[in-house]
Amino acid sequence: MKTDREYMQLALDLAASAKGRTNPNPCVGAVLVKNGVIVGTGLHRKAGEPHAEVHAFNMAGEHAKGATLYVTLEPCSHYGKTPPCAKLVKESEVSRVVVATMDPNPSVAGRGINLLKEAGIEVEVGLLEEEARQLNERFIHNMLTDKPFVISKFAMTLDGKIAAHTGHSQWITSVEARQHVHELRDRVDGILVGVGTVLADNPSLTTRLSYKKGKNPVRIILDSELKTPLNSNVADTTEAQTIIVCGKDADNEKIGQLKEQGVQILTVSKTDSGLDLDETLHELFKAGITDLMVEGGADVNASFLRGNHINKFLVYIAPKVLGGSHSKTPFAGLDLEKMDDAVQLEFHSFEQIGPDLFISAYPKLGEEK
Amino acid sequence: MKTDREYMQLALDLAASAKGRTNPNPCVGAVLVKNGVIVGTGLHRKAGEPHAEVHAFNMAGEHAKGATLYVTLEPCSHYGKTPPCAKLVKESEVSRVVVATMDPNPSVAGRGINLLKEAGIEVEVGLLEEEARQLNERFIHNMLTDKPFVISKFAMTLDGKIAAHTGHSQWITSVEARQHVHELRDRVDGILVGVGTVLADNPSLTTRLSYKKGKNPVRIILDSELKTPLNSNVADTTEAQTIIVCGKDADNEKIGQLKEQGVQILTVSKTDSGLDLDETLHELFKAGITDLMVEGGADVNASFLRGNHINKFLVYIAPKVLGGSHSKTPFAGLDLEKMDDAVQLEFHSFEQIGPDLFISAYPKLGEEK
Repeated sequence: MKTDREYMQLALDLAASAKGRTNPNPCVGAVLVKNGVIVGTGLHRKAGEPHAEVHAFNMAGEHAKGATLYVTLEPCSHYGKTPPCAKLVKESEVSRVVVATMDPNPSVAGRGINLLKEAGIEVEVGLLEEEARQLNERFIHNMLTDKPFVISKFAMTLDGKIAAHTGHSQWITSVEARQHVHELRDRVDGILVGVGTVLADNPSLTTRLSYKKGKNPVRIILDSELKTPLNSNVADTTEAQTIIVCGKDADNEKIGQLKEQGVQILTVSKTDSGLDLDETLHELFKAGITDLMVEGGADVNASFLRGNHINKFLVYIAPKVLGGSHSKTPFAGLDLEKMDDAVQLEFHSFEQIGPDLFISAYPKLGEEK
Repeated sequence: MKTDREYMQLALDLAASAKGRTNPNPCVGAVLVKNGVIVGTGLHRKAGEPHAEVHAFNMAGEHAKGATLYVTLEPCSHYGKTPPCAKLVKESEVSRVVVATMDPNPSVAGRGINLLKEAGIEVEVGLLEEEARQLNERFIHNMLTDKPFVISKFAMTLDGKIAAHTGHSQWITSVEARQHVHELRDRVDGILVGVGTVLADNPSLTTRLSYKKGKNPVRIILDSELKTPLNSNVADTTEAQTIIVCGKDADNEKIGQLKEQGVQILTVSKTDSGLDLDETLHELFKAGITDLMVEGGADVNASFLRGNHINKFLVYIAPKVLGGSHSKTPFAGLDLEKMDDAVQLEFHSFEQIGPDLFISAYPKLGEEK
């Protein structure tokens, strides 16, 4: 490695290895280079543990003096669980700092960089910025909205069906794709379904990985009238936590019974079309959910879609065609008149997983309808 | 170029340049190489014109003697519109022939090769065979079944919708993807829709390319009760031909009126689920249709699917999500009970066209349900 870009890519790769582990903090990587030798590396592994820069400076010791620091996010300028990194960087007497992207928090953005500049350190901002922002899309969204980053995930046939008219859907995709879903679950804070899915399929919504013990996301059930059965898998909280979101008028006795089983209850306002999703998301964020995967059903998906609450789409397409006039599709809800009413996205990536196709896409900014 | 593989790839590339132009003949390319120099090249451009080998030998002249011939398909051994190529190859005194794949016609396969071997020429078969068979998938299917090669083509949103509940669908995909569709139309013999599509949208089903005058495919309308309006775009045959397929009991007066407008009428038997598609395909092949694209609607698509009549799937997916409980999907028809009832495919390729995704897939052989 020789170029700024290569060192920053290393810092990004280090950071990315902890993706899904640092919540609510961002993923950050740091690389210290002196005379063409990497003298320090670090990454933020987990909230409460040292920041990336701390690890890198610990490793570098004396060698930090006069080195260049590559860091994926602007060093923090405030006292939190750890002292501000900008102070550490300043004291370490590095001669140059290359930052991929500024702090997304508007109230502190630029402060860390200014601290360094005032100390006479050369600072460059913006190298591999797009990659750095992509890596921390969840954190950036959190900072700007105080809401969880919402991923809509679904699996369908090549003709857009998620189940037969009977509801039968096991399995649409291959073993490989289903393992991939569990890897996603392992890295998000929450997984959200409507109570319809609970009543129809009684899913456990846990992470089941073949090669390691995964982290279970918090199960979040949208259940305005509190119909979740006490003996359902999601109401059993021995393996994983559950939050049920219901209306403010929900039955107090049922609330009590669910709480006794360890279920958390969030009460939110109702709108014409059901639970207030904006309020729900703010409440979930307060409850520590920084990102969540919406896994259906079709009406819940549509409510998130029409409220512009989806930040990313992850879609598995299986090489099969089901047909059927009453087969289920991934988004139902309100019938609009025209194709122009579709929500516009941009594809981000395509990947084959086993025999299936995996697509990621983002809402097209500024063109939502 | 130095290797057998490279010369055969050139022969395949030459052949492929005439794809869709040689019907009912196959696409064939030929390259003659002597002492590391390409002394002759040729391809079959159009039915009735010389075969690939003839062009290559014409170019090579004296140099063919002792050369190696690379040819994508076994040289023909029968007298058709042109004399047998195997005879020409023999007389040219080449020393070696490399063939990508044998003639798919079971009644003549191997004869051309035997002719050459008997003349003492070294013959190798099977180099880049998969590519050669893919290139002539249409011809191979024709030879084995006496039916057109059937392509199911559709465009949908990322949530599997082809139209709003109102039928509104203009446009799902981008300008780029729609041009791509017209390039496909330019290279198939026929384009098939149900009369429902004619009645709902009155499409012209012609080829409209921005950069050249395209070839219009024959419009084929499945119309068991002959409901196609005399003043519909497809009943106007000034620009493109039309075949209407109807039941044997169709109204003779209407048949007469349509014929007067230049429409060809094919009458076929009916089954419980409509026109007999197997008979329809045999009749269309007799009428000179070697491949066709089925462009819907959802029930016609489903009939072809459930009859195992689809040989290839071409799918455009637009980066948008429509939702809607009554939006239209690409395959409707009979509702089966289980996801296991889906027809199994294999993805062949993924390509981004403008903002859209273009997928090709084949039915998985031996696992159709």
